[in-house]
Amino acid sequence: MQKGKASILFERDVYISGMASIAGKKEGEGPLGEKIDVVELDPMFGADTWEKAESAMQKQTADLVLEKTDIHRKDIRYLFAGDLLGQLIATSFGTVDLQIPLFGLYGACSTMGEAMSLGALCVDGGYADHVMAMASSHYATAEKQFRFPLGYGNQRPQSTTWTVTGCGSVILSAKGKKNQVRVTGITTGKMVDLGVKDSMNMGAVMAPAAWDTIMQNFEDFGVDEHWYDRIITGDLGEVGQKILLDFMRQKGHDLEEKHMDCGLTIFDNEKQDTHSGGSGCGCAAVTLCAEILPRLLDGTWKRVLFLPTGALLSTISYNEGQSIPAICHGVILECAKGGAGK
Amino acid sequence: MQKGKASILFERDVYISGMASIAGKKEGEGPLGEKIDVVELDPMFGADTWEKAESAMQKQTADLVLEKTDIHRKDIRYLFAGDLLGQLIATSFGTVDLQIPLFGLYGACSTMGEAMSLGALCVDGGYADHVMAMASSHYATAEKQFRFPLGYGNQRPQSTTWTVTGCGSVILSAKGKKNQVRVTGITTGKMVDLGVKDSMNMGAVMAPAAWDTIMQNFEDFGVDEHWYDRIITGDLGEVGQKILLDFMRQKGHDLEEKHMDCGLTIFDNEKQDTHSGGSGCGCAAVTLCAEILPRLLDGTWKRVLFLPTGALLSTISYNEGQSIPAICHGVILECAKGGAGK
Repeated sequence: MQKGKASILFERDVYISGMASIAGKKEGEGPLGEKIDVVELDPMFGADTWEKAESAMQKQTADLVLEKTDIHRKDIRYLFAGDLLGQLIATSFGTVDLQIPLFGLYGACSTMGEAMSLGALCVDGGYADHVMAMASSHYATAEKQFRFPLGYGNQRPQSTTWTVTGCGSVILSAKGKKNQVRVTGITTGKMVDLGVKDSMNMGAVMAPAAWDTIMQNFEDFGVDEHWYDRIITGDLGEVGQKILLDFMRQKGHDLEEKHMDCGLTIFDNEKQDTHSGGSGCGCAAVTLCAEILPRLLDGTWKRVLFLPTGALLSTISYNEGQSIPAICHGVILECAKGGAGK
Repeated sequence: MQKGKASILFERDVYISGMASIAGKKEGEGPLGEKIDVVELDPMFGADTWEKAESAMQKQTADLVLEKTDIHRKDIRYLFAGDLLGQLIATSFGTVDLQIPLFGLYGACSTMGEAMSLGALCVDGGYADHVMAMASSHYATAEKQFRFPLGYGNQRPQSTTWTVTGCGSVILSAKGKKNQVRVTGITTGKMVDLGVKDSMNMGAVMAPAAWDTIMQNFEDFGVDEHWYDRIITGDLGEVGQKILLDFMRQKGHDLEEKHMDCGLTIFDNEKQDTHSGGSGCGCAAVTLCAEILPRLLDGTWKRVLFLPTGALLSTISYNEGQSIPAICHGVILECAKGGAGK
């Protein structure tokens, strides 16, 4: 059912049948280390290039979520997936063996939100019994593509975020049990560009997009921050979080207690030297599978707004002096089992 | 309604309310020149970089389709769009002013098929009254990204295709008139990789993907080539067409009379020195809007299978010696007004 300008309330139940997360050594040493399904100590994932490593990670994560849910890959009707790399090569090469009809998505670090939005829409509409949504990033492929070769050992300003080496995957299904997490609604983001040009400060770039989607979600569903147990952005980091809370406060919303950011959850910035926090498609995707869904399943939270955020720049647009537009896709997750969650 | 393994038959009518195409000088000099809405003689589209030129072209095409259909941009609920560039920068920057909730897609030259598939699914499901599907490519941005700077003036083998400078956009709507074209079904492609590594021979790369999706479409809907008045691939060119017809023949299907390729329609290869044919997201998108939809509207054809094809390589994957996986998304277009169409 269409809600307001940019949201959909799902009338059927769209269940999250299962989730899987695989991440790298640094992520394994962070606060979520114990909760990530597989921590791979080899950053090359057994491959001979960084890009093949990221593809291998996607393939392994897809296999793992199928194994955990005991759903055969042939029963997954559609795959909604993406990554950060130009021409989506991590996904293209990573998913070829799965032989599942694929919708390739690019939403930068917002991709997991985009994939779950379209996947849920597909299941709710009766177009599929099971779909898979997946997103990945790899520190080395992202640095190589967006910034400098790792061998340069260049310094990073404190406002930068650290691209997560990780992949998260969920299966969305038309049938499920009452105690499973459900996707109950989505709010689709539009491009937001306030003119920020600093590619070393993605938090400042993406915070306005997160703000825009949260405000739209509140308006479309006629709710506010009290409706949710947590409002969880993708990878704003310390800098972006401050901006978001400021922006929200100016509109009369105090998110201080409700806000959580995946980028501030997956790493311990002080101990791990990750500056402003984690980022990348894998940041929101892994945190979803390792922390957010488990907390909904165990009743800690009842309803959260999951908001992966993406900055849509390339080295070309950056080198040509363009600003950085951003986008944020909101997904409402609920679990009947959850308590008051305050 | 789910049909077979990878297809959907739309139960409601999904109407194409309007279409618009903008292309460059070379395309304007080709066989479709008179039929393209706007032929822009300035390859820079008034901008100061190639990338901004492509973004400007997207913006102008979106504005044009809104103007032609007399639908306000605020009434377009979702935009499904993409291009060939890393991190989709033509789309990201081109659509920011539209302020329409955006699903960014990457399917290489298959993007128009992917956008129309998801857009139609969204309209059929009741999630939107109007959505826009759009895809673009620009010769100069594509050459710069995938091959060599134009200034090098490098030679191209005969098997190469020529990236179309063009953008096509359609509006899909829940309500319409009987004499409009409708999207009646889709078949979603999966990644196909037969190990071809020659980035100067995209036809050979993509033909197996087109074959795979056509065969899947026939199986899922229980039809064959006689069901369609035309089976129209995106940009196989001369080389790819031969391979596709061969592959189909081996499975007992003679597509000789029914097959059409947008890459062989938009350019006159002999006169225009375009070697194997046209390519790029804009190739299928412009040919759709300038030739395919008008032929359905005027009754020449009644039912066609539109199959944009994409090769999912990047310069990184190519330089690392990887093969090139491909994908093809099928969209069934019908017009009640159409005749026998033979």
